[in-house]
Amino acid sequence: MSIADQMGCSSNSWRRACFAGSQKGFASHPLAGLLGRLNHVAVATGDLEKTAKFYKDLDAKVSATVPLPEHGVYTVFVELPPDTKLELLLPLGDKSPIQAFLNKNKSGVSNLLEFVPSMRSQKSAPTTNVFLHPKDCGGVLVELEQE
Amino acid sequence: MSIADQMGCSSNSWRRACFAGSQKGFASHPLAGLLGRLNHVAVATGDLEKTAKFYKDLDAKVSATVPLPEHGVYTVFVELPPDTKLELLLPLGDKSPIQAFLNKNKSGVSNLLEFVPSMRSQKSAPTTNVFLHPKDCGGVLVELEQE
Repeated sequence: MSIADQMGCSSNSWRRACFAGSQKGFASHPLAGLLGRLNHVAVATGDLEKTAKFYKDLDAKVSATVPLPEHGVYTVFVELPPDTKLELLLPLGDKSPIQAFLNKNKSGVSNLLEFVPSMRSQKSAPTTNVFLHPKDCGGVLVELEQE
Repeated sequence: MSIADQMGCSSNSWRRACFAGSQKGFASHPLAGLLGRLNHVAVATGDLEKTAKFYKDLDAKVSATVPLPEHGVYTVFVELPPDTKLELLLPLGDKSPIQAFLNKNKSGVSNLLEFVPSMRSQKSAPTTNVFLHPKDCGGVLVELEQE
């Protein structure tokens, strides 16, 4: 298994980014320097309307509900100034990836932290997103996604 | 039960803040306007050294481990520029509040989001922290704490 595979670099563009990083030398982590701003924290909920209302009541800027059937979720974004967001998620369809989480936890912060790749890595920036495996990240699913 | 009690405003200073908010009128949530910047997201882990190393390898600025026996945790802070952090938590002692979470989830993002109260609320700012009950927050334990 390659370093890119081990680090979850599943797309070709990210493989290039990973190997570009690894060329710094063996002491450097292949994804060193890629971790940028925290874009959002995902929060799974069984009652999207109620949870969205909670943040609205606190005067937060809350988006409309957007169905994303290709991802199996309804989403609502809560803006947390200056530049972070919560992504509230409700399952959509029988195969929703967050249904298992809700079955176990009822509701709460799901194990997804999404980061924007740092400016230092823009030359090798991905054209798509990449997930780092939770076993490498202390049980957290870390996603790096170009804005 | 008072509005402050219902909203988890357990300290006297926060009771004042809550009531100051409620005086805007009945249509206003007692904590409206208090939600400020996301200070940090708590991440429970059963292997603090490994999880801290993961973020160090990504070139993040990672603090030393600090034992907080009064809270039943060891903590490590990971800086996420410009102004958010992860707080990595390992149980300390038999009565650690995050042990139950780890027993159930092994590791992952715990249900704690901590915010700094917004500048708009500084006149009624707390001298201590306040927790909003997860049942009101979509299963998330929201903490507001003055820096």
